[in-house]
Amino acid sequence: MSANPVQFAQKIGGALMRRIQRRDPLESAPLSVLCDLLLADGAPGQALHNASALADRYRRMTPQDKRAFFTLLGEHYGADEARIDLAIAAYQAQRTPAGMGALHAASEPKRQQILRRLNAAAGGTALLVSMRKDALGLARELPDFAALDEDFAHLFTAWFNAGFLTLKRLDLSSSGAVLNRLIEYEAVHEIGSWAELRRRVEPADRRCYAFFHPSMPDDPLIFVEVALTADIPAHIDEVLRSDRPICEPHAARTAVFYSISNCQDGLRGISFGGLLIKRVVDELRAELPGLRRFVTLSPAPRFARWIKDLRADPDSLLSSEDRAALAALDQPGWPDDPGAAARLQGPLTGLAALYLSGSDGGSVTDPVGRFHLGNGARLERVNWLANPSARGMAESHGVMVNYLYDLDEIERNHRAFERTRIGAVAPAVARLARVEQRKSAREAPRPPA
Amino acid sequence: MSANPVQFAQKIGGALMRRIQRRDPLESAPLSVLCDLLLADGAPGQALHNASALADRYRRMTPQDKRAFFTLLGEHYGADEARIDLAIAAYQAQRTPAGMGALHAASEPKRQQILRRLNAAAGGTALLVSMRKDALGLARELPDFAALDEDFAHLFTAWFNAGFLTLKRLDLSSSGAVLNRLIEYEAVHEIGSWAELRRRVEPADRRCYAFFHPSMPDDPLIFVEVALTADIPAHIDEVLRSDRPICEPHAARTAVFYSISNCQDGLRGISFGGLLIKRVVDELRAELPGLRRFVTLSPAPRFARWIKDLRADPDSLLSSEDRAALAALDQPGWPDDPGAAARLQGPLTGLAALYLSGSDGGSVTDPVGRFHLGNGARLERVNWLANPSARGMAESHGVMVNYLYDLDEIERNHRAFERTRIGAVAPAVARLARVEQRKSAREAPRPPA
Amino acid sequence: MSANPVQFAQKIGGALMRRIQRRDPLESAPLSVLCDLLLADGAPGQALHNASALADRYRRMTPQDKRAFFTLLGEHYGADEARIDLAIAAYQAQRTPAGMGALHAASEPKRQQILRRLNAAAGGTALLVSMRKDALGLARELPDFAALDEDFAHLFTAWFNAGFLTLKRLDLSSSGAVLNRLIEYEAVHEIGSWAELRRRVEPADRRCYAFFHPSMPDDPLIFVEVALTADIPAHIDEVLRSDRPICEPHAARTAVFYSISNCQDGLRGISFGGLLIKRVVDELRAELPGLRRFVTLSPAPRFARWIKDLRADPDSLLSSEDRAALAALDQPGWPDDPGAAARLQGPLTGLAALYLSGSDGGSVTDPVGRFHLGNGARLERVNWLANPSARGMAESHGVMVNYLYDLDEIERNHRAFERTRIGAVAPAVARLARVEQRKSAREAPRPPA
Amino acid sequence: MSANPVQFAQKIGGALMRRIQRRDPLESAPLSVLCDLLLADGAPGQALHNASALADRYRRMTPQDKRAFFTLLGEHYGADEARIDLAIAAYQAQRTPAGMGALHAASEPKRQQILRRLNAAAGGTALLVSMRKDALGLARELPDFAALDEDFAHLFTAWFNAGFLTLKRLDLSSSGAVLNRLIEYEAVHEIGSWAELRRRVEPADRRCYAFFHPSMPDDPLIFVEVALTADIPAHIDEVLRSDRPICEPHAARTAVFYSISNCQDGLRGISFGGLLIKRVVDELRAELPGLRRFVTLSPAPRFARWIKDLRADPDSLLSSEDRAALAALDQPGWPDDPGAAARLQGPLTGLAALYLSGSDGGSVTDPVGRFHLGNGARLERVNWLANPSARGMAESHGVMVNYLYDLDEIERNHRAFERTRIGAVAPAVARLARVEQRKSAREAPRPPA
Repeated sequence: MSANPVQFAQKIGGALMRRIQRRDPLESAPLSVLCDLLLADGAPGQALHNASALADRYRRMTPQDKRAFFTLLGEHYGADEARIDLAIAAYQAQRTPAGMGALHAASEPKRQQILRRLNAAAGGTALLVSMRKDALGLARELPDFAALDEDFAHLFTAWFNAGFLTLKRLDLSSSGAVLNRLIEYEAVHEIGSWAELRRRVEPADRRCYAFFHPSMPDDPLIFVEVALTADIPAHIDEVLRSDRPICEPHAARTAVFYSISNCQDGLRGISFGGLLIKRVVDELRAELPGLRRFVTLSPAPRFARWIKDLRADPDSLLSSEDRAALAALDQPGWPDDPGAAARLQGPLTGLAALYLSGSDGGSVTDPVGRFHLGNGARLERVNWLANPSARGMAESHGVMVNYLYDLDEIERNHRAFERTRIGAVAPAVARLARVEQRKSAREAPRPPA
Repeated sequence: MSANPVQFAQKIGGALMRRIQRRDPLESAPLSVLCDLLLADGAPGQALHNASALADRYRRMTPQDKRAFFTLLGEHYGADEARIDLAIAAYQAQRTPAGMGALHAASEPKRQQILRRLNAAAGGTALLVSMRKDALGLARELPDFAALDEDFAHLFTAWFNAGFLTLKRLDLSSSGAVLNRLIEYEAVHEIGSWAELRRRVEPADRRCYAFFHPSMPDDPLIFVEVALTADIPAHIDEVLRSDRPICEPHAARTAVFYSISNCQDGLRGISFGGLLIKRVVDELRAELPGLRRFVTLSPAPRFARWIKDLRADPDSLLSSEDRAALAALDQPGWPDDPGAAARLQGPLTGLAALYLSGSDGGSVTDPVGRFHLGNGARLERVNWLANPSARGMAESHGVMVNYLYDLDEIERNHRAFERTRIGAVAPAVARLARVEQRKSAREAPRPPA
Repeated sequence: MSANPVQFAQKIGGALMRRIQRRDPLESAPLSVLCDLLLADGAPGQALHNASALADRYRRMTPQDKRAFFTLLGEHYGADEARIDLAIAAYQAQRTPAGMGALHAASEPKRQQILRRLNAAAGGTALLVSMRKDALGLARELPDFAALDEDFAHLFTAWFNAGFLTLKRLDLSSSGAVLNRLIEYEAVHEIGSWAELRRRVEPADRRCYAFFHPSMPDDPLIFVEVALTADIPAHIDEVLRSDRPICEPHAARTAVFYSISNCQDGLRGISFGGLLIKRVVDELRAELPGLRRFVTLSPAPRFARWIKDLRADPDSLLSSEDRAALAALDQPGWPDDPGAAARLQGPLTGLAALYLSGSDGGSVTDPVGRFHLGNGARLERVNWLANPSARGMAESHGVMVNYLYDLDEIERNHRAFERTRIGAVAPAVARLARVEQRKSAREAPRPPA
Repeated sequence: MSANPVQFAQKIGGALMRRIQRRDPLESAPLSVLCDLLLADGAPGQALHNASALADRYRRMTPQDKRAFFTLLGEHYGADEARIDLAIAAYQAQRTPAGMGALHAASEPKRQQILRRLNAAAGGTALLVSMRKDALGLARELPDFAALDEDFAHLFTAWFNAGFLTLKRLDLSSSGAVLNRLIEYEAVHEIGSWAELRRRVEPADRRCYAFFHPSMPDDPLIFVEVALTADIPAHIDEVLRSDRPICEPHAARTAVFYSISNCQDGLRGISFGGLLIKRVVDELRAELPGLRRFVTLSPAPRFARWIKDLRADPDSLLSSEDRAALAALDQPGWPDDPGAAARLQGPLTGLAALYLSGSDGGSVTDPVGRFHLGNGARLERVNWLANPSARGMAESHGVMVNYLYDLDEIERNHRAFERTRIGAVAPAVARLARVEQRKSAREAPRPPA
């Protein structure tokens, strides 16, 4: 028998769809009628039917139609002002917990109920996630986008609660559908072929883990790729090279998180990454007690842009010494010119340390840095010419960074970051950053911007 | 590898528990500290740890402790009044959607966040469901019970959304753990032995279906037992007798829902029954296209009490003719006395028709009747001496009822019931009820109470 | 889609069956035609069809029919004598490996091919196993039973090869169908209720393991029940009592195999028990490194009969002293008479030691003893009044025995037993046996029978 | 817990292997000792250990070592001549069924027992299959290869019995490991990329089915790729083109088996293809009752070679007319020259009809043709320029063929083929072949070769 709504729908889907398409008066009903029907209390079967009708309608919408639908949701299905006014009055009269509850209920936009009930349609959860993705894409064209988006976020926060996520190791025993997603979603180091996919999940010194939600069993929410190594890698080739020696897992001392990819644009703002790292660290420690260090090998995706801005701004913190050295960046093919590379190494690693440690007085602006430092990791090492790929050079002049997850320090680092927006930094990196600061300070007594 | 939080916890549970028990400062922390920690934004790992600490603490609580915990939640973790006041003021100034949203957020009790985060602990969902059950048991002793209970209900409504429920057929391929629940929870016709359990799920003309939530894979939320028959049964023995002839499923024309049991007291008010019936009807129609009728064979659990009240009240609608006949009920062993039974049949079936059709002018008070009529079913037939068990006699003088789920009428019936609180009734039953009303009306011109 | 022959048959079974029953000329064909068809090389589909036809026919046979079928197989489907004669002549002429092969092929009874092809029918393997069980039941009435039985045994030895068996732990996560078998097959300590079943598989200090064959996924071949304890138990109550303290598994030092049951009469002679114990020992050692001892708590099922024979034979090895003491056995209720029990303890434990150690000069006749000693276990301890159940008293005067599986000694013990048919015996038990022998020897210088 | 030998071995494999490698005296024992140990009756655990030791040894063997091992098996582990002589004498004296059985047993080579017990090692079945593949590769260097190979075949025939095979549909829900095999083994139309793989299994009008054995769950034995179409395709592009219109499965009238690949060289001679087609036809008919025709789109892999031989032999059946026309084949790029192609079409399709129908007086020599015609299919159509790929042109001058599986004719066709080695041929193809024969006959009155 069919086990869950998805399978159920697949089984009777054809028949149902034909019925809906042929005779169902809902097919041509105005959207607002479909929404009102979902809000009304129908017999349980009818509610399911109404949800399917709206889901089906949405699936056939053009972008134009979607904009109209979101606008309708935003304008007509907010909370009821009169009801809010009454609830405010009642609350202010007595200020009871029940009054608070009534206020809370009255101020809930009606569209939350619509979205909640839409979830009952086959494939409803995935549809709602893609619906929010669509809304995000139309954000600028939607007058009430922020309120609508908050409703999506509210529902998803409840539904994608940590307690409902399932951690799974992905490997060749995973289904083709799941592996297909891995290929599609890998955002950091692209997977170009089946052979490359196997290199990521099959060797004894590779691991890949993902979070899944029970309603989207073939569709990971987020995944992380891990390499088991002896030492902290300083170059992406130590991890990705196809002819590298395989590290025997029990001999490994270091687990390297070298790629983390969020898979669902529609779940933006629902954060899974920190929890994923925590859970994977627990898994790996249980399986491989010899592991001593958990680090990343991460890009600094906005570093090159930051450098460009510094160079463009004559008043920036850039010392004239650095400014002169950085001119070598304008020379095409500089990484292949040993002299140019040697001249750039000092300034670029120093500036990277400064950029990522946030110690230029402001908060960390690099998104990857903010993620790991906010999770309580420490900026451990800046690696020079660590990623010679076109993208690596363009985004970060080849620099890669290790963040260290020291289990005894995570909570303390996290709290400090919450308070100060400044991340933990290893002494050596802090020194690099200070050298840069001093160069800059010597010339410019003004406080850095 | 461990796949989900439950299994994960089972695996590392021992270690974790020992660590918590031995050195964890949270073990002896005041409850309010644990709650505050859960509310604070810790590093992702720490949040998981805090949730586990509170879950673990709750599991060791005495009823006394639980009362204190619920009281704390009720009194100290409501919404923040000052924040509400600000939100009200801001809303009233501008009345924007954003203002509504802020008001909604401000009036959400903080304990919702506590409960939401507690869910991340291993077995968290099941724990929260049992927690609400505990709170229901202590309801009278808890000053703010209603507000607290609403928070549970709010979360569970989001989490146990129809889209997350999985329909499964239960049979001998189900796990022992699940079958064990069937034995424990069957509320209508008790299962006393393994042999009886097999009779419910194994024969070709039996079906049993349940809803499950992914976080509680061994614990059904609700289940229904179905018999496949030729005709609508008029006696429970046609369904339960161990030596009955087995009906070849493809020859069956009728599916009889003869027992529906809710399994989770902690999910009171989150209604699954109507949807379950709808989904099972769809399953059965897909599997057995020969089915023509979907009916129940249901008790009328408060009928005997209603009769008793009528007889005790000299001004009740009871005609003097019926009143005299009903005296036979006081004679022990009347069902075995053909004369007594014959004298009772007319009045009792007539009164049952009246009682269940709600046509005595008021709404239906029988809980089973309210459930099925509210789902859109029709009161189809009243069966005389249909359940001779001790319980059947005590609760309903042996009367059982068939409700008919006519797929073409469900939605109409449901809407009429929503509007009038009066259920749909088959002509024959309506006639029975009218006869009773007339008897009563002849004597007493006053409108029935 | 249907995944294996069993499921496939369940799905299209109805249709197929009806087709066979309605129009299939095979339905009324003589049995010999069905057998000949199976032997002939049909198109692959036809072969499957022919196998189903014979399987179907067999399922409808009366015992009478079965006797005729087995007789047919025995008489008409042996090897071809003329072909054997030719093969012998050819072999004797050249004595090549190819000639040997031809001789082997020529002397294979044709019924092996029939049985092999019958296996392709849905549920074929289970059918063949039950077919052999039927044949065993009719053994005395079948002239060529031995040859037929050897063919079954030959096939089953190939099919139930150790490499194809799957070890599974049985617990409440097992299916109802499998647990049902546990209840049905438990041969040593009967399982009377669902509650008793749970006591065998659910507590933390219980384990139950079974071997399965992929073609019979719901039907265990053999299972063993294990108790985890601190010490070697001396009484069945230490293991089965429902109010015993639960032993924390990691604190357990002893694993007690207290019940081993073969489930398939039709697999008689295909031995699974020794391998099961070996595999379970490996499992338990991997899971619980604290285990120090693997022992059984076993019955001596023919001990009482042996005693009875000794007492009935005036010339038996029984000393006059023992003979006098054993008279107390004739007194009903002797276990409750401390005096009688005390008088019996010495002679009965001594005689049990003698009986089970085989040291009365002959081989061990007790089937349980032969099994464990043959596996390489050591007769470790004789336990007095260890099983007061009616069966325990009737079969073995309440005596139970521990066999010890000492991993370092198993192979040596096994080889010694293979050579001498005398099992390994712990010093204390050997002493007990010697005392008995001396008593006997004093009186009767003749060698024990 | 570990469920089967394979998983078990994976779990404790490391430990076991280390133990064997470090201290196990078997590691350096001569191969004959390992074989003798496996033949001897050890304690059950020891037998498992011995099997693992030999399996482990085999896995580390060089081709040199393997040749020595196979030679040892062939020379020293045949049947015992003295025992055979005794059995012959006993049989000839009495000619009983028991005597036949003894003869059968005596003439079984001992290596069968070795191979049978080796199967108990973790991964034993897959190892034995690869062992036979190795032996086949060394066939010419092994003096007793035929006898040894017969023993493998004998075991595999028993083990890979139709009743033990599981039919599975392969699609994106299959594991990466299984899909990987699909890529590796596809022998007819190569799969070059992940995208191409998806095109084979994902569209609604594609199906892929495989047989699996329970001991090799990740490794298909054979698979078939199916296209659902309206009509019988005449060109491979109708099936493989990536931009073809998708056929709605329920509207499909034809199922096209366009690729069948055996996966295990070590199972050569154990035929799965006919049964696979039969089972897939049953599956498809149950799922899609609208299907009317089951055909193949097959290569004729030896057709070009046959043509070449005809042209090389001046006395062949080739008419002078055809001989002249076929000269166009020597012109490179003739398929792109409409004139050349037009001149070749008549002769080549006629000759293909003749070649494949076996109606040139001999049996069908094309392996694909022999397979389908032997299964009872009918040669339905010869398609001109149906496969323009390099391989298709080189092997069969672009010709492809449809074989039709007509369910009502299969058994009759099969029997006729068994008797005559001539396959069933559609009238139109028979006509084509007759035209060719006449051309040839006109010139050469001699019977065709």
